[in-house]
Amino acid sequence: MEVDEPVRLPRLPRVAVCGGTHGNELSGVYLVRELLKDLREKDAEDGGPLSVLVVLSNPRATQQCRRYIDVDLNRCFSHATLNGPVPDASPYEIILSRKLNALLGPKGGQGAVDLVCDLHNTTANMGLCFIAYSDSDWICLHIFKHLQMPDMPMRFIHYDVSKKESYSLDSVGKHGFALEIGPQPHGVVRSTNYTAMKVGVQHVLDWVRHFNSGSVFEGGFVDVFTMVKKIDYPRDSQTHNITAAVHPHLQDRDFCLLRPEDPLFQTFSGEALTYKGSEPLYPFFINECAYYEKGVALSLARKRRVAVPPIRAQTEEDKQASFASEEEE
Amino acid sequence: MEVDEPVRLPRLPRVAVCGGTHGNELSGVYLVRELLKDLREKDAEDGGPLSVLVVLSNPRATQQCRRYIDVDLNRCFSHATLNGPVPDASPYEIILSRKLNALLGPKGGQGAVDLVCDLHNTTANMGLCFIAYSDSDWICLHIFKHLQMPDMPMRFIHYDVSKKESYSLDSVGKHGFALEIGPQPHGVVRSTNYTAMKVGVQHVLDWVRHFNSGSVFEGGFVDVFTMVKKIDYPRDSQTHNITAAVHPHLQDRDFCLLRPEDPLFQTFSGEALTYKGSEPLYPFFINECAYYEKGVALSLARKRRVAVPPIRAQTEEDKQASFASEEEE
Repeated sequence: MEVDEPVRLPRLPRVAVCGGTHGNELSGVYLVRELLKDLREKDAEDGGPLSVLVVLSNPRATQQCRRYIDVDLNRCFSHATLNGPVPDASPYEIILSRKLNALLGPKGGQGAVDLVCDLHNTTANMGLCFIAYSDSDWICLHIFKHLQMPDMPMRFIHYDVSKKESYSLDSVGKHGFALEIGPQPHGVVRSTNYTAMKVGVQHVLDWVRHFNSGSVFEGGFVDVFTMVKKIDYPRDSQTHNITAAVHPHLQDRDFCLLRPEDPLFQTFSGEALTYKGSEPLYPFFINECAYYEKGVALSLARKRRVAVPPIRAQTEEDKQASFASEEEE
Repeated sequence: MEVDEPVRLPRLPRVAVCGGTHGNELSGVYLVRELLKDLREKDAEDGGPLSVLVVLSNPRATQQCRRYIDVDLNRCFSHATLNGPVPDASPYEIILSRKLNALLGPKGGQGAVDLVCDLHNTTANMGLCFIAYSDSDWICLHIFKHLQMPDMPMRFIHYDVSKKESYSLDSVGKHGFALEIGPQPHGVVRSTNYTAMKVGVQHVLDWVRHFNSGSVFEGGFVDVFTMVKKIDYPRDSQTHNITAAVHPHLQDRDFCLLRPEDPLFQTFSGEALTYKGSEPLYPFFINECAYYEKGVALSLARKRRVAVPPIRAQTEEDKQASFASEEEE
């Protein structure tokens, strides 16, 4: 019988936990504040092998309980935006994204933190979601496997975007993901969501500590939802106002298969509009508040099962062997 | 057997339906837009005995999908605010409240519209609520009785505030009430809430038409929830940030009796805090988004049953008799 040898991956000594990237998504805002308090209290006792950087990403938007001040911070971390010109009158978040890239990055560079976990909320009924740009980052997929909790549905969403084009704060780390929880109105904190996110972050940090200490993690399978398209609301051609809401049969049914001719919208005059796609797909971010302005009523994903190999952290010997083999090449 | 003679009340020829008083409460925003479209289409055919004025109250806040621009419009209609000085640099909503008072009022004057129905949303799990300043306005209580719908809990909330001190837009009419529906995140429209509000407004207008045409409405009883106090979140004494969320056992349990020592909050470090009041009361507006800044985590009400007499509209004969009796006095 052949047993898979674990894939050996670099340790993750520096992790960042970020909240308030959107200033009105309060689970992350209050969790980060609590973690900062904990860290201050633990400063003296803890000098362990894991450095955790806790960041309130957009303090001004958080102060005003708004998603952003000028532009959406979580769209400012593409290679092009981080390296474009910065005129004097730049939007607040453009300046801020450079500062965060200096703190947590530089994106794509050796000095970047090893893992960024960025905390978000959605008004959609999505439970706890793990959102990443890669379906073959074994660190992210193993953390996701470790995060399964009873009573809390948990899915892996994959945006198939290159590292260079990836635009969100979590893309600044060597590995990164967003932890998204809903439903929760923006500007509101619901205790069960807060607690689930707190437990989730504890599990992430526990996993990283085990990984760094040399534990071997068994392989397995993960269901991955890869985003394939977005659907906008029907709109008035002149005013651009929406003319329909998400249909009651679709509302709150994130990750339930949407089939051709299923109801999609209900117009404000009462007419049902159906899904005209040819392929059954999985809807998510259904009726997310912040996406009205982005022209997205829901996103649609294809689901597939990804095989994840066993992994463990590289030892000093592995590293030396790796150096040696590189020198031989 | 004694049969109560119906109370005779003036007809209600002019009704206003208002939405977007808070620009991010979208049921009313989209319903008012739909009604305005309907009205344009019906203009030619309809010259009936009921004039319905449809108003998008805060167009600028609606445009920006914010509750308000400078100050909360729905707190600007007290006698003092409407009659105070208006300096050049007045907040947008102070100016706006004068314009709305000119359009729908003047508040307390004979020229005011007969009934104002103002449409609102809440993030709290309150179903459909009828909010008024009086528990003895038979018009409002009869409309409320008429509004009961299957599958949609419906309650009457009473703020015991004098006409002069009453501060909301609906206080400008001779009669007035807010129609509040939730749960719904601000900035989101949910189809079932939209439809319930649409049906509710249709029932209000149907009732007024029947009343004006001389129908007699039987008396009965209404459960009235009178607000008695508000409770703020626990807060950090230095930063004023909240330090706890509504307890999971209380969240979404609007109008379920809260007893002394029942859980009230859960701190962000995980501790449960209980209700220290001495009297069991009914909570509502639990965890309403817009009330964080107002220092209100929930409101508490006493419930009691109010007897409502039968009513009908005054006829011309009633009016003449009334004039005659006034002259005799």
